[in-house]
Amino acid sequence: MRATLLHAVRDIRVEDVPDPRILHPGDAVVRVIAACVCGSDLWPYRGVSPVEEPHRIGHEFVGTVEETGTDVWSVRPGDFVIAPFSISDNVCAHCRNGVQTSCVNHAWWGSSDAAGPIDGGQGQAVRVPHADGTLVPVREAFEPSLVPGLLTLSDVMSTGHHAAFSGGVTEGSTVVVVGDGAVGLCAVIAARRLGAIRIIMMSRHPDRQKLALDFGATDLVTERGEEGAARVTELLGGIGADVTLECVGTKESMEQAVDCTRPGGRVGYVGATAGGSQMPIRKLFIRNVSVAGGVAPARRYIPELLPDVLSGEITPGRVFDLELPLEEAAEAYRAMDERRAVKVLLHP
Amino acid sequence: MRATLLHAVRDIRVEDVPDPRILHPGDAVVRVIAACVCGSDLWPYRGVSPVEEPHRIGHEFVGTVEETGTDVWSVRPGDFVIAPFSISDNVCAHCRNGVQTSCVNHAWWGSSDAAGPIDGGQGQAVRVPHADGTLVPVREAFEPSLVPGLLTLSDVMSTGHHAAFSGGVTEGSTVVVVGDGAVGLCAVIAARRLGAIRIIMMSRHPDRQKLALDFGATDLVTERGEEGAARVTELLGGIGADVTLECVGTKESMEQAVDCTRPGGRVGYVGATAGGSQMPIRKLFIRNVSVAGGVAPARRYIPELLPDVLSGEITPGRVFDLELPLEEAAEAYRAMDERRAVKVLLHP
Repeated sequence: MRATLLHAVRDIRVEDVPDPRILHPGDAVVRVIAACVCGSDLWPYRGVSPVEEPHRIGHEFVGTVEETGTDVWSVRPGDFVIAPFSISDNVCAHCRNGVQTSCVNHAWWGSSDAAGPIDGGQGQAVRVPHADGTLVPVREAFEPSLVPGLLTLSDVMSTGHHAAFSGGVTEGSTVVVVGDGAVGLCAVIAARRLGAIRIIMMSRHPDRQKLALDFGATDLVTERGEEGAARVTELLGGIGADVTLECVGTKESMEQAVDCTRPGGRVGYVGATAGGSQMPIRKLFIRNVSVAGGVAPARRYIPELLPDVLSGEITPGRVFDLELPLEEAAEAYRAMDERRAVKVLLHP
Repeated sequence: MRATLLHAVRDIRVEDVPDPRILHPGDAVVRVIAACVCGSDLWPYRGVSPVEEPHRIGHEFVGTVEETGTDVWSVRPGDFVIAPFSISDNVCAHCRNGVQTSCVNHAWWGSSDAAGPIDGGQGQAVRVPHADGTLVPVREAFEPSLVPGLLTLSDVMSTGHHAAFSGGVTEGSTVVVVGDGAVGLCAVIAARRLGAIRIIMMSRHPDRQKLALDFGATDLVTERGEEGAARVTELLGGIGADVTLECVGTKESMEQAVDCTRPGGRVGYVGATAGGSQMPIRKLFIRNVSVAGGVAPARRYIPELLPDVLSGEITPGRVFDLELPLEEAAEAYRAMDERRAVKVLLHP
């Protein structure tokens, strides 16, 4: 089959690789219908995290179950399934606590487990370990046009929801979103879905501003840093936001998020920290701003968000503004790296 | 009157100072019945925070209202009152949000406001600005033996409660307490009061261990750092604590607290950060451990905790293991600095 490999910094290739097969009774093999490129895929692509040797890449996909191991009971061949961005058994203590990303059997797509290699998501098919714990089947019939929305549940929509949920967004909350990438845009959807009455998106890109407004943002702030925080505070009656959703992951974005938050408020953060995020602890302490979030347990949230995607109540699939054949994965990375696209969907 | 001044590092003196008087219609003058020395008073005493000139010190006191300004309606001369460790109007947006430490009219004891100097707590009397917002009267009759317990509501008991409340301790929580000072010991009381079923105190001092057990700790761990966290995790079935209460405020204690906490758990932190606390953000992110707390809004909690002190349901006054006349304030500081006492009560 064909799959995407990152060979070195800015060197993405689609190559022939061995077809996946069942290596363990708990495995399934899934034929990929749609995959995509994540903002976090750009770290190794840009060399922010080191690339030591060519490796399989991609951690977001939806597809059809092709084959299952003898232990698998929750999905069967022919099922349409959503794969969260990491693997979990969904039965251990951490999974039961709703933190599937800390599962005792946790693994990443594109890595390997005791049974052998685990395929990356940007390919034609994937061996799925712990298929019963990992995959979420969609048993309802749906239009093909919903595939992009279902694909966002793999990562960006679930991650945006994690920011809002961890930040404690509830009926009547005032919310600020820092970061207008796919996750930040999905965080707008999530905040609105949880009942926020005011959602301020910090963005200076007209296309992303428009999408944010469509998703439920009530205000736009184009300023950044202290100036941006001052503008937010002014919009919120001098008080600051109940909750700020930090969807970037740099020192500057975290500082900005804390500055936007009212005393006693919360920062829900999901911006992965490869870029060197830091917490301004003196400010947090003196203002009683709490910080909650981390790597999103997408597996936990997919069953909750799925009905709203199927019903069209939320339309996170709109974050995809470019679709390409898998063979053009290198162009997909370039488009995201150069900010020509918010998020790129790949058709295997 | 007589009051305590910090002249320079390790130079505490009790001196004659002007009697306080009403300078603003919202003021009250309170005759101090009992005051005490705080762990945070030791920072300037030890030179951790700079001492530029002699200044009044002390921020915990209870006493009797002697005189009130014409605007004051909530307390009257003769009332026994508890003063939280900072001044607030209790009506602004931040106060209504329960964050009185961020009050728009916030001030510290021993500083000054537009009307003039504000006395420190370690003295015979205090001018109290925003008396209606700041002071909590105790209208019930009580035995003099309850005074130390009432005094802890000024700071340490309210701060311990803030750690437990911010950390989300609830019925059935497993809790670890890092720090066996007065705040950590009060955090044990608070955790038990909120329904924790397991309270592990990390302490290597036999007298503090005993008090922790009396207050409701179920286990003691004497190891520190990674070794201590490993022992805690072992005691908690390999999972880690639902909530860890960080009551020290150093880089090491915060790291230890995070290491003790299960994925998806929370650190409630109140250890003031003068010692250079830092948040290990990579660990927080990957394990979804959230961090909540800060400088405790004692004013918020006093009305809730007061009935339990009056009824004897909780006995935080036991953290005082030395009582001295105000004139011996210098010895009180030495005793705490040299760890001969957990907390010292001063009789003016």
